[in-house]
Amino acid sequence: MLFEETIAKIGELDKEAQARARRRQDALIKPMGSLGMLEDVAIKIAGITGETMPWLEKKAVITMAGDHGIAREGVSAASQEVTPQMVRGFLNGGAAINVLTRHAGARVVCVDMGMAKVVDDPRLVVRRIGPGTNNIAEGPAMTREQARAAVEAGIEIATEEIRGGTQLLATGDMGIGNTTPSTAILAAFTGFPVPLLTGKGTGLNPEGVQRKAQLIEKALAVNTPDPRDGLDVLAKVGGFEIGGLAGVILGAAASRVPVVIDGFISGAAAMIARSLAPRAVDYMIASHLSEEPGHRIMLTWLGVEPMLHMRMRLGEGTGAALAFTIIDAALKIVREMATFEEAGVSDEGLH
Amino acid sequence: MLFEETIAKIGELDKEAQARARRRQDALIKPMGSLGMLEDVAIKIAGITGETMPWLEKKAVITMAGDHGIAREGVSAASQEVTPQMVRGFLNGGAAINVLTRHAGARVVCVDMGMAKVVDDPRLVVRRIGPGTNNIAEGPAMTREQARAAVEAGIEIATEEIRGGTQLLATGDMGIGNTTPSTAILAAFTGFPVPLLTGKGTGLNPEGVQRKAQLIEKALAVNTPDPRDGLDVLAKVGGFEIGGLAGVILGAAASRVPVVIDGFISGAAAMIARSLAPRAVDYMIASHLSEEPGHRIMLTWLGVEPMLHMRMRLGEGTGAALAFTIIDAALKIVREMATFEEAGVSDEGLH
Repeated sequence: MLFEETIAKIGELDKEAQARARRRQDALIKPMGSLGMLEDVAIKIAGITGETMPWLEKKAVITMAGDHGIAREGVSAASQEVTPQMVRGFLNGGAAINVLTRHAGARVVCVDMGMAKVVDDPRLVVRRIGPGTNNIAEGPAMTREQARAAVEAGIEIATEEIRGGTQLLATGDMGIGNTTPSTAILAAFTGFPVPLLTGKGTGLNPEGVQRKAQLIEKALAVNTPDPRDGLDVLAKVGGFEIGGLAGVILGAAASRVPVVIDGFISGAAAMIARSLAPRAVDYMIASHLSEEPGHRIMLTWLGVEPMLHMRMRLGEGTGAALAFTIIDAALKIVREMATFEEAGVSDEGLH
Repeated sequence: MLFEETIAKIGELDKEAQARARRRQDALIKPMGSLGMLEDVAIKIAGITGETMPWLEKKAVITMAGDHGIAREGVSAASQEVTPQMVRGFLNGGAAINVLTRHAGARVVCVDMGMAKVVDDPRLVVRRIGPGTNNIAEGPAMTREQARAAVEAGIEIATEEIRGGTQLLATGDMGIGNTTPSTAILAAFTGFPVPLLTGKGTGLNPEGVQRKAQLIEKALAVNTPDPRDGLDVLAKVGGFEIGGLAGVILGAAASRVPVVIDGFISGAAAMIARSLAPRAVDYMIASHLSEEPGHRIMLTWLGVEPMLHMRMRLGEGTGAALAFTIIDAALKIVREMATFEEAGVSDEGLH
């Protein structure tokens, strides 16, 4: 019910607000379009919020953690022990995502979507679907019901955040091994050859990358996910945190709140969200282009353009948090710049 | 004298500080190198300042204005009247550069390096080399002495800023027609075919772009700038603000202060600076990749990598100001993140 209702609620962007925002941009003392994506982002947010000069004060990154059965096959340079250790790091404020959200004046909300080990800490939001997924090289990651429950958990978390006043959301992830299901999702939707899409994750050597690609091919052959059915793709080759993040995106879109997409794992979640609700893409802002080789293809499939090209590959929501300050800047441009008329600047030839 | 002394003063980066900064990065709870350019930038700044955990509180964008004789040939969509009008906009705080420097907690210092019209305002730093350059399609933009004076003015302004406590500088420009000399500089140093490098500037139509390319070819044929002599290139096909900005870069480098390079015009100034003092590149941080088609080639020639890909083409220092918040974030990572030891996270497989 929540699942279907949320998807049904995702509406079109407000084209009138976008037209007003475009007119405002063109009245400011600069050549038309010369601030590039800084203009585009402000106009998109106008379309989402319906306001010509929006301001998004309260921001949060939803960082979701999950474990992956496939990690047992050695697809990551790090051990699965690291997932809960890093989650404790997030809760204690010493991880990269904490530094970058503080820098952006934002909060990080840490969610256990299904780690292998339980972390007992009242600051952790617990929405565990299970103790890590099954090994996708052997069968489906989870049941269809679990996939649906993961998405609904994400919807609920986003909705609760928004009810609490959050105006800009972002997605982040933690889960040793999670570039593997993300690559499988990307391959399932696009049909691109797996070796082209497969990267080193946290730091595999070339042989490890090759083995990882073979396991992804096996997972796709064993599970045959249906690219026309996002829930099927999620259930068969996804992950609990990926499903949760897809839910965060859908929940944000249904409430007309923009959502900043982090890197490769967030992108896989965005693909699931788009396949469930194509309009969800209109509410997404792509933050950065990651080092993962498939990320560019992923963003192209989504139809979004990243602002930052910084060779980052950490996840956690770090690229998205960094993009928050750029989005703030884009919105300040609209509110604070003078118009040609106000400043007495000739706009001849600039329109 | 100042010119030669400044160039002679530009030293190597502090390799020990860089090694310490690299060790610090690798001790933080993330896979090695996973923050990409956020790590690289912090390590570069360590090499510049000699500090493992530097913090650059006081920041300024030096935005230099100048006019160009070639503007009479219709190489810009805008009229030369716009240069002083926009400079008044900067002084009154309503331009994009003002919004973005305020956002970054930085100042903008506006300098008249040689506009066609005088702007009478006590807030404007006046270092006029002349009332705009000569038409480079007919002869040299300026004399060699003027080129040298422009660079020295930039050195003095940078040095004065740094004496006043500024720890991070950036370059910005304003000058109707100034993508034309910048493209000529790029072509002079790289030998690339001019039509490949020539863009629409503030908004030329395709016929205008073609005519602009022909004028640049003519300027190169008439003036034959010597690519082994940066001052010759500047004098023959450059601009007063471009020379000034080259001086800002050299002055920053000589005082071991990092300098953020904005877009295409700043990049042309950086090429002049590098040709005068190859080590100056070590002190540059590239902010963004501009829409100008030659910018990627320019940055490749310089050997620097831009962080932001936002299709911006405004100049003023806007891309550099936007990069300030990213640089702040990079430095906070080093200072605020926990180490594997502090956080009790296993670093197995991550090193």
